[in-house]
Amino acid sequence: MRAYELSGIGLERIAAVERAEPTVGRHDVLVRLRAAGLNARDQQIVMGHYPVGKPFPLVPLSDGIGEVMAVGNEVTRVKVGDRVAGIFAQRWLSGPRTRATWSSALGGDLDGTLRELMVLDQDGLVAVPPHLTDEEAATLPTAGVTAWQALVTCGGVRPGDNVLVQGTGGVALFALQFARMCGARVIVTSASAAKRERAKQLGAADVVDRNNADWVARVRDLTRDEGVDHVIDLSGDLAASLACLRIGGTISHIGYLGGVRIEADIFPLLLSNARLQGISVGPRSTFEEMNRAIALHRMRPVVASVIPFERAPEAFAALSSKERFGKVVIKF
Amino acid sequence: MRAYELSGIGLERIAAVERAEPTVGRHDVLVRLRAAGLNARDQQIVMGHYPVGKPFPLVPLSDGIGEVMAVGNEVTRVKVGDRVAGIFAQRWLSGPRTRATWSSALGGDLDGTLRELMVLDQDGLVAVPPHLTDEEAATLPTAGVTAWQALVTCGGVRPGDNVLVQGTGGVALFALQFARMCGARVIVTSASAAKRERAKQLGAADVVDRNNADWVARVRDLTRDEGVDHVIDLSGDLAASLACLRIGGTISHIGYLGGVRIEADIFPLLLSNARLQGISVGPRSTFEEMNRAIALHRMRPVVASVIPFERAPEAFAALSSKERFGKVVIKF
Amino acid sequence: MRAYELSGIGLERIAAVERAEPTVGRHDVLVRLRAAGLNARDQQIVMGHYPVGKPFPLVPLSDGIGEVMAVGNEVTRVKVGDRVAGIFAQRWLSGPRTRATWSSALGGDLDGTLRELMVLDQDGLVAVPPHLTDEEAATLPTAGVTAWQALVTCGGVRPGDNVLVQGTGGVALFALQFARMCGARVIVTSASAAKRERAKQLGAADVVDRNNADWVARVRDLTRDEGVDHVIDLSGDLAASLACLRIGGTISHIGYLGGVRIEADIFPLLLSNARLQGISVGPRSTFEEMNRAIALHRMRPVVASVIPFERAPEAFAALSSKERFGKVVIKF
Amino acid sequence: MRAYELSGIGLERIAAVERAEPTVGRHDVLVRLRAAGLNARDQQIVMGHYPVGKPFPLVPLSDGIGEVMAVGNEVTRVKVGDRVAGIFAQRWLSGPRTRATWSSALGGDLDGTLRELMVLDQDGLVAVPPHLTDEEAATLPTAGVTAWQALVTCGGVRPGDNVLVQGTGGVALFALQFARMCGARVIVTSASAAKRERAKQLGAADVVDRNNADWVARVRDLTRDEGVDHVIDLSGDLAASLACLRIGGTISHIGYLGGVRIEADIFPLLLSNARLQGISVGPRSTFEEMNRAIALHRMRPVVASVIPFERAPEAFAALSSKERFGKVVIKF
Repeated sequence: MRAYELSGIGLERIAAVERAEPTVGRHDVLVRLRAAGLNARDQQIVMGHYPVGKPFPLVPLSDGIGEVMAVGNEVTRVKVGDRVAGIFAQRWLSGPRTRATWSSALGGDLDGTLRELMVLDQDGLVAVPPHLTDEEAATLPTAGVTAWQALVTCGGVRPGDNVLVQGTGGVALFALQFARMCGARVIVTSASAAKRERAKQLGAADVVDRNNADWVARVRDLTRDEGVDHVIDLSGDLAASLACLRIGGTISHIGYLGGVRIEADIFPLLLSNARLQGISVGPRSTFEEMNRAIALHRMRPVVASVIPFERAPEAFAALSSKERFGKVVIKF
Repeated sequence: MRAYELSGIGLERIAAVERAEPTVGRHDVLVRLRAAGLNARDQQIVMGHYPVGKPFPLVPLSDGIGEVMAVGNEVTRVKVGDRVAGIFAQRWLSGPRTRATWSSALGGDLDGTLRELMVLDQDGLVAVPPHLTDEEAATLPTAGVTAWQALVTCGGVRPGDNVLVQGTGGVALFALQFARMCGARVIVTSASAAKRERAKQLGAADVVDRNNADWVARVRDLTRDEGVDHVIDLSGDLAASLACLRIGGTISHIGYLGGVRIEADIFPLLLSNARLQGISVGPRSTFEEMNRAIALHRMRPVVASVIPFERAPEAFAALSSKERFGKVVIKF
Repeated sequence: MRAYELSGIGLERIAAVERAEPTVGRHDVLVRLRAAGLNARDQQIVMGHYPVGKPFPLVPLSDGIGEVMAVGNEVTRVKVGDRVAGIFAQRWLSGPRTRATWSSALGGDLDGTLRELMVLDQDGLVAVPPHLTDEEAATLPTAGVTAWQALVTCGGVRPGDNVLVQGTGGVALFALQFARMCGARVIVTSASAAKRERAKQLGAADVVDRNNADWVARVRDLTRDEGVDHVIDLSGDLAASLACLRIGGTISHIGYLGGVRIEADIFPLLLSNARLQGISVGPRSTFEEMNRAIALHRMRPVVASVIPFERAPEAFAALSSKERFGKVVIKF
Repeated sequence: MRAYELSGIGLERIAAVERAEPTVGRHDVLVRLRAAGLNARDQQIVMGHYPVGKPFPLVPLSDGIGEVMAVGNEVTRVKVGDRVAGIFAQRWLSGPRTRATWSSALGGDLDGTLRELMVLDQDGLVAVPPHLTDEEAATLPTAGVTAWQALVTCGGVRPGDNVLVQGTGGVALFALQFARMCGARVIVTSASAAKRERAKQLGAADVVDRNNADWVARVRDLTRDEGVDHVIDLSGDLAASLACLRIGGTISHIGYLGGVRIEADIFPLLLSNARLQGISVGPRSTFEEMNRAIALHRMRPVVASVIPFERAPEAFAALSSKERFGKVVIKF
């Protein structure tokens, strides 16, 4: 079977290889991949800015969906023909993260999804919503689960809440869509007029030009100077997020931001009784809960571009494109 | 000013009277009422099935909205001309109920809203959503706040959840509308085909005929036999609610059900790890949070019938009508 | 190896048998049992009052601790020589219960602990606190975990809370000890003067004679008529528990009470904004969290009597003894 | 009556003055102060580093206890002769902070406690635990409530948790005592051997020398490299706190640290799924809950030094003393 391997640091170290076909053990599931998704983390791994737990060569990417081709004789969770996604951290099934459950991430601690065939323990798979295309479903495992974990599992967003979403990247657009599902009013910041327009079409109540020097004041105005209830902070600019936040609000820090430092006066943090939470994906139970809601609402993730498997390395350039609005997906 | 007084047990003990115009103290607000709403509790008080904390005569009803006519010189929360509602328990402002904050209910511990003029402490008032008619706004203080408290404040309903709403009374319809706002899928039970049809128009994903002997099985089928995440139990039939519930789900017991007993085998309660919560209205903070969401979604409460102030006692008959779908309101 | 099997309903259907020595698979652990504990559920299973998921013959009992004798070659959680306990539901590792994780209970869905050797998946084991004797450690998996789940994981008991514990059975005494660990004040009810005295020695601030017709009033007096914050209800007498509860308090329903019905007027439940939770054991994460606290506090569970393995069926009589105070354990 | 007034920035601007005796309105309570407590905030206000909402002159200090001398004719919460404390923010009674409830702090937005007589609304008072001396009780309103809010109300500390307390200031010692009450194991850092010794006497399981360059590693060693569950961060050194924290742990930022900046790489925050919360005192309900626990445990706050009212300005020097261990109190 064909696969891509990263043999060291640098995009030029990704190469197509031929690998032996894997076989399934008692609890295992063989999946033929049909689409894979890219995240900022994948790029950071290629550039050496994100720690990986497995020596090179490494099959990149954590997100992928495909069809079950074979199952071990003790497998009960899925059956041949099912369309499934691997979960980001293969051993993080429910509850809070622990060290033991975390060090099992696809495309980092374990080989990832940029290959035709993949064998995972049945516990590491979930069914994906039937109404989605393969490309759409491939966007869910990291960015979708992260946004849900931030807003719903750990954030408890309620109808009527004001949610500020910074930017229009993969996690940001999921956050916009999920916050709307929760009945919240969403304010999106972006430096691009075209992206602001698209954010409005996706349901943003208001958009703010991030180039505007007083964009924070604009956000406060939109909340009658109360501040927003929840900030999805993808920038690491803690001072700005605090300035936008209402007393007692929550900031979700998200993103694979090697090298970014957060800095802020502590006073606003104290006086606003702010709550900050660092979010990195979520457990399988979050993925399943999210899928149920996506299916109910027939929600469609935003796919920015689709790259064929044969030209997979081009996906990293697509991820860096300034015009990108949504997720980059590789089609097998 | 004109008012109605209940001078003892029985509907015939309600009579129109003339009362002196009230004056405002430093923290007080004078409100000219424009609409008042009825709840089952009001009927139970008239029939002597619900305890009241004030000797007769009592001005009935807890729900009412009107215009601020005058304010005391230390009032900061509202101003003349504002449209406001009284909160159910005048001293329950936020957090959990306590004995001290509870015994201050309009139309029970204190005179209620069935009068032309009412003076309340400024703390006992909230502004109502501007897009609502007076009649619509008058439905909020008890039934609306109760449904929000059950589903949102204490229930944490999430997008994708399955919520079972029993019946189509005042609280039930608010629960249907709020659960939808939370992104949930709502199943409504009713014995009336016409009401089931209207529930669907209001957004119920599915309706179940309550006359059907195996209606519980039907509810379970609609959730692939998982059971629902949340039951809004307005009947007191705990055994049926447990039978509809998923493992780890929540039952909100609501209603002013003097004389109703709950009975069930304890085994299903234990094995399903069910959580039951008794709900009776909520604090001012719940009211304000609900109003913010109603305004954002431009949601409209369902008004079943409007009775003129001059014929106010007829509202109790309207409340008992079998055809009623929504709230009964008195217009001043 | 020797084992006991239950071949049908009735205590006389328990018999000692010889079984083949089990072998370990890749993820498996072989444990030589040293002590096993009894719970009311075990008795109910023998009497046919509790559903089991496995056809007879069944090795009874869910609680047991022993030494690891061998491990499969992919086992990382334990090593040979460790002292471990099996968890009640072998697949319930963390988070809320689900149908999938529940139907894996030792001594019900799977063979239990009344045998010399037992093979479990490594996920189904936890290390036990070193300072405990084998007999003490064997009391933890069901009664200990249930009490912790009720008070700590789902109950959030805080320092200064008033906790009412009904009776002095296995779960009750753990609840007493854990509530004290949480900084709460504990009130214990019992019909036996001797047991009340022992409860005081274990740290109960107050004891109430359950034979006293107005024991509920006595409990209320002890809280200046506020009511207690939390009731550990092992009787199913919901009306009494509600009468003892403060507004906004929590009742944990616990116990394997086949045939018991809960009945109460719904009014007190509504007006007190009570929260009821049905508790049945808990996940592995609860067990581990509890063990950490037991080790820190060097807490010792109460062992009522120890029966040698050779006379194991006598343990059921010991469980029924009126004088019993604490847990019945079988020593191998 | 005698009072101290701060007429501008600088310690030399505090002066004793004579003021008219206050009178009570309908809801008011007249308190004769017997002891007042100092906090870092008071010092920062004197130095101009903390915003105040009232023009000078300002009576300093937020903490004070005294005896009720007279009550307005609608006062029900207290009676003449009661020993009471003022709450920090006079309008913050329960639930989360809001802008409206916050801007009512004694010794900042309103005149404070450094005066012989004080009139407060009855809502702004709580009874204090009877077993405490006046000096001990005067330490509670700010430092005590802050520590309880961080650990219990917002922190949910559980038995067996590892809690890291930075330093031995007023809030730190309350945190040590309250965490112990919750059944936690407490690790205290201090640069002073004498203070570390005293922390051990107060119940710290372990102490770490803050002068030691690898004190963070020492903290991790004490938790078998898991990290602690909760950090009481009084330094603003976010990077160090994150390095001490377990995955999924909580950091409470506390203190009146004008000019302090928090800085840290965002990566550890994300990967550890850390939760940060900014804490500044708490509502009246927190104060009452804390008092109940202090009374039950007969806990005694640590008083470092007592200054007579006549020499009150010296208290600021006592607060800055390097040897100080506990709270500085002024005795009337």
